[in-house]
Amino acid sequence: MLSLLYTVDLLAVAVFAASGALVASRRQMDLIGFGLMASLTGVGGGTLRDLLLDRPVFWVHDPAPLMVCLTLAVALFFAAHAFQRRFTVLLWADGLGIALYGVMGAELARQSGAGPLIAIVMGMMTATFGGLLRDVICGEQPLILRREVYATCAVAAAAVHVGLSEMGADLTLAAGCGFAAGFGLRALGIAKGLSLPIYKPRPGKNY
Amino acid sequence: MLSLLYTVDLLAVAVFAASGALVASRRQMDLIGFGLMASLTGVGGGTLRDLLLDRPVFWVHDPAPLMVCLTLAVALFFAAHAFQRRFTVLLWADGLGIALYGVMGAELARQSGAGPLIAIVMGMMTATFGGLLRDVICGEQPLILRREVYATCAVAAAAVHVGLSEMGADLTLAAGCGFAAGFGLRALGIAKGLSLPIYKPRPGKNY
Amino acid sequence: MLSLLYTVDLLAVAVFAASGALVASRRQMDLIGFGLMASLTGVGGGTLRDLLLDRPVFWVHDPAPLMVCLTLAVALFFAAHAFQRRFTVLLWADGLGIALYGVMGAELARQSGAGPLIAIVMGMMTATFGGLLRDVICGEQPLILRREVYATCAVAAAAVHVGLSEMGADLTLAAGCGFAAGFGLRALGIAKGLSLPIYKPRPGKNY
Repeated sequence: MLSLLYTVDLLAVAVFAASGALVASRRQMDLIGFGLMASLTGVGGGTLRDLLLDRPVFWVHDPAPLMVCLTLAVALFFAAHAFQRRFTVLLWADGLGIALYGVMGAELARQSGAGPLIAIVMGMMTATFGGLLRDVICGEQPLILRREVYATCAVAAAAVHVGLSEMGADLTLAAGCGFAAGFGLRALGIAKGLSLPIYKPRPGKNY
Repeated sequence: MLSLLYTVDLLAVAVFAASGALVASRRQMDLIGFGLMASLTGVGGGTLRDLLLDRPVFWVHDPAPLMVCLTLAVALFFAAHAFQRRFTVLLWADGLGIALYGVMGAELARQSGAGPLIAIVMGMMTATFGGLLRDVICGEQPLILRREVYATCAVAAAAVHVGLSEMGADLTLAAGCGFAAGFGLRALGIAKGLSLPIYKPRPGKNY
Repeated sequence: MLSLLYTVDLLAVAVFAASGALVASRRQMDLIGFGLMASLTGVGGGTLRDLLLDRPVFWVHDPAPLMVCLTLAVALFFAAHAFQRRFTVLLWADGLGIALYGVMGAELARQSGAGPLIAIVMGMMTATFGGLLRDVICGEQPLILRREVYATCAVAAAAVHVGLSEMGADLTLAAGCGFAAGFGLRALGIAKGLSLPIYKPRPGKNY
């Protein structure tokens, strides 16, 4: 079981690291800039999660996550131009990341004794944090401000996972369904522009 | 006494959560975006405070703070248009928050053995952090960059509280006076534009 | 040895605090704004480092770092106009800071048992974090987005220090060479515009 969580963690690191490197390519950074952006984005969400849960930060005693980040940084420094539409690739990598971290954040919160509500919010926060860091540092418009479903997907991933786990489903099943729900929803957001109703001010009545 | 601090903490969470939800309304987010902004803003400052003091993060084992955030998010998603001047409401909610957290941050720092200077700076940092997070994520101009007294109010709240406590005042009195000083000052800032002298470059001599 | 690290830490705090106060002067803040920016920038990187390594945060039980920050804030509030080209002074102070924290972050990571790769990345992250905080809060373009070598210098400082330490050099020598490498490189970046090759999209093929 631990090894499943470990693998999922590395996968989430990888896709967020790739999204960080792609933003670095959009800002025309040098190789070290790629490494920094890939590292910060790749481990950002998991670092917040571990700090909040008072667990040892997952990459501080294990070089694997950073190796994944740096490898992707180097690879994309040389290969990012192969993707004709980098921003789209970035969106999909980020979408994989939020579904994976939505599940992971919620599961690790549960394991440290948090109730369902806290586990779901922890999933939402940690899933969106790495991408926020990436966008804020680089002065990109945060993906969370775009219209299509975004944080919603992290909530869906976390909620499905927590719900199934509470009902007694085993970890693999619950995590799999949670991931599918979160990523499926995000895919509809990216590909079809699916969005929830937004807040609408009434005309003439607002600042 | 603990229950006083607990109540103050929930109040601070509530007013910052409301300010986060109001920024979400200005950015026309969906309901989940409201929930995320209310949560991040509501618990941001207290989370930083607890991490710095090496205390358990206050909302990780207690669902009440997040319930407060999410309730306000839902309420404001449907009711924010009822406020004709949302930005003004936001300013006042934020002002309440910095006065409350200015006191709380300082008091909890004192309880973990910090001296007066550290307690006051801790009050200033944690009081302004949730709002900074809110403004930076949403690309709003941080309130701290505006001319009227802002961080000053957190300092006033923390300093009055620490000063009275050092002189032996009881917790309720010191906290009450600290809050009154911080919020009173902020009220003058919002309503009257009260400001401290700002740094003025000499003409023709600066970059 | 501890006292060397302690001195270096205070120095790093001082130069970053000065850079924070200079940004406050560029944004024409009041005295308290200077104090907040100097404090956040001065202790930001070291705070992240201590949180990640699960050490007590260095300024929470020792008033010296904050006293350094506040003293510089007051001094620069009254004296910043004496520097005809404040932005240049800011660049150099920041450059000193990243070289010092590059070494410190790496050394403290080593002392808590991290391997070379993690120690170097820790140096890079903590060295660049205080400045990022400063620039993001104030809405300045982060220095990390500029063309000249920047994060590279933190990496150089950390890598030289870690490399020499692994080869058995004593702490003073390794730290000194690391600092010299990092700051020397940054000096070339500031004074001569030295930069690494940046990522270049192919014309007509990219988003």
